[in-house]
Amino acid sequence: MFPNQCYSLQLMKNQKDKIRGMILTSGLQKIFCAGLDITEFYKPNPDRLAKFWTTLQDTWLSLYMASFPTVSVINGHSPAGGCLLAMSCDYRVMVGPNYTIGLNETKLGIVAPKWFQDTMVAVIGQRKAEISLTTGKMYTTNEALQIGLIDESLPDTDSALKKGIQFLNNFQKISPWAYKMTKDIGRQPTIQWLIDNKQKDLDFVIKYMQSPAVQKSLELYLQSLKK
Amino acid sequence: MFPNQCYSLQLMKNQKDKIRGMILTSGLQKIFCAGLDITEFYKPNPDRLAKFWTTLQDTWLSLYMASFPTVSVINGHSPAGGCLLAMSCDYRVMVGPNYTIGLNETKLGIVAPKWFQDTMVAVIGQRKAEISLTTGKMYTTNEALQIGLIDESLPDTDSALKKGIQFLNNFQKISPWAYKMTKDIGRQPTIQWLIDNKQKDLDFVIKYMQSPAVQKSLELYLQSLKK
Amino acid sequence: MFPNQCYSLQLMKNQKDKIRGMILTSGLQKIFCAGLDITEFYKPNPDRLAKFWTTLQDTWLSLYMASFPTVSVINGHSPAGGCLLAMSCDYRVMVGPNYTIGLNETKLGIVAPKWFQDTMVAVIGQRKAEISLTTGKMYTTNEALQIGLIDESLPDTDSALKKGIQFLNNFQKISPWAYKMTKDIGRQPTIQWLIDNKQKDLDFVIKYMQSPAVQKSLELYLQSLKK
Repeated sequence: MFPNQCYSLQLMKNQKDKIRGMILTSGLQKIFCAGLDITEFYKPNPDRLAKFWTTLQDTWLSLYMASFPTVSVINGHSPAGGCLLAMSCDYRVMVGPNYTIGLNETKLGIVAPKWFQDTMVAVIGQRKAEISLTTGKMYTTNEALQIGLIDESLPDTDSALKKGIQFLNNFQKISPWAYKMTKDIGRQPTIQWLIDNKQKDLDFVIKYMQSPAVQKSLELYLQSLKK
Repeated sequence: MFPNQCYSLQLMKNQKDKIRGMILTSGLQKIFCAGLDITEFYKPNPDRLAKFWTTLQDTWLSLYMASFPTVSVINGHSPAGGCLLAMSCDYRVMVGPNYTIGLNETKLGIVAPKWFQDTMVAVIGQRKAEISLTTGKMYTTNEALQIGLIDESLPDTDSALKKGIQFLNNFQKISPWAYKMTKDIGRQPTIQWLIDNKQKDLDFVIKYMQSPAVQKSLELYLQSLKK
Repeated sequence: MFPNQCYSLQLMKNQKDKIRGMILTSGLQKIFCAGLDITEFYKPNPDRLAKFWTTLQDTWLSLYMASFPTVSVINGHSPAGGCLLAMSCDYRVMVGPNYTIGLNETKLGIVAPKWFQDTMVAVIGQRKAEISLTTGKMYTTNEALQIGLIDESLPDTDSALKKGIQFLNNFQKISPWAYKMTKDIGRQPTIQWLIDNKQKDLDFVIKYMQSPAVQKSLELYLQSLKK
């Protein structure tokens, strides 16, 4: 799952006291992050799925509460888990106008868990998040800008990276401690549910992912990808 | 109270496993829904008022958590309880520009209870909801569109109905289970207060509706309607 | 701290049953309210700091839950605590385009406590509040209008005062009881944290304000003011 990004996040964990900012971006053509590997959900081994999901929970908690400013430079499509990564940063710069972003889980017959939803509500508000989530809509760069799902749209990766660095420069004279405390106070309510319900969240995923209806939806989706 | 709509909602309850979407609209000229029947609050019989209010609580819980997509096509004025019905749907298309919508309870000397308020906050955010609620403002179609209280404005009922159907078509290929789970997760925090406080909410209404000051306000309001 | 405003707020407390509305504004040139007196935080006496902070907590609780409509006419700069005062009113009219407003605590190396943050989230939403708070940005009148931090911008104090009075006139025919109940229901969740955590909030402030890093930040800031 997210191989490039996980490498960065691991690095982030080991070096976090020295890091003053991070930009999440992609080395791929046209894909920022394709989200979770759906094949992990198709005919899953429960133990492997449990490890997979727990890693995702922990990755999100680390990224969402990163002690330094984070920017995603979204230089490609960003569905589902990719959108979650982007939304968990402090700021989003997207390369446009041709890429798309969104939590499109319902289109695959699955459900964005509560902490995905809460992350989206924090960014775009409850009203827009509900329509976005129930319809599973993927937004173009311009649409994403209009609803506040991204903060800026740039025509290419280089100029988007410059904007990302420019955002990080806002913090050059800010005390890292004051930054971290301020962010913690604001974001803590959003993560509290997952901290209190990690096992419940995992149990739900393991149970529903193995249901015949969801397996059928995933099968159809995986077949559609092969075409 | 809301006779047409209640009929629909009863139907909805009996048939809910077969329903794939619902449009709430009005057969009346110029009125989408006039809200609660104020005469029920004037010199009320406490038992009758208790039954009336409990029915309203249950109607709202059913509509707000409907297991299928809901649209209100607001083809007439929609004050107070009418606005609540509209806000409880997934999407709002309003016929404009001459109709008005809002939670205007304070104008009648009464109070929109917490669950009315929370429903509005979920749609337009806390800031706009507070001004709307304290001033009891009725918004024109254009104003309602601007603050997000409605999603679209159309010049006549036919085109508004088409837009409503178009919205429901978003869900044709979405698994009903994934839709329902996603909506439940997002809306559950809004209804939790009423679930936990049904009796307290009822007791408050019965007590304050019988206070001399509120009865005086209602008397003046009912007299103004006769003119 | 806020000498003019505190006088008004004391008056407000004694006369609150007779007051039908309040406008908070400044008699100073170019300053609406400069916020808390930072010298109180530099090499503080813990007892004096405790009294200072408790007074601030109580002032905010009174203003935020005022039983009558409140407007701030922001006729000058309004950083930190000044921004908190303005945000705690029902409506904000600002004289532009040259003044600035914001919670700029991180720029001073300190932290806006949870209740400052929640007050801002209630006005501009979580997304904009986070960027505003972590970067410590001061917004020009036009920027503040665009993000919803103020409701209107006027070119001079007289026209701003007229707008403030016009807002209060919305409530001339509204029952004071219905106004107060409606506002209480909406604002209660925002104040609940401070009511439950007054001592914890105070302990945190006293502890962190005395830390060497924060004292160093404040020293640098106070030196920069002397230049």
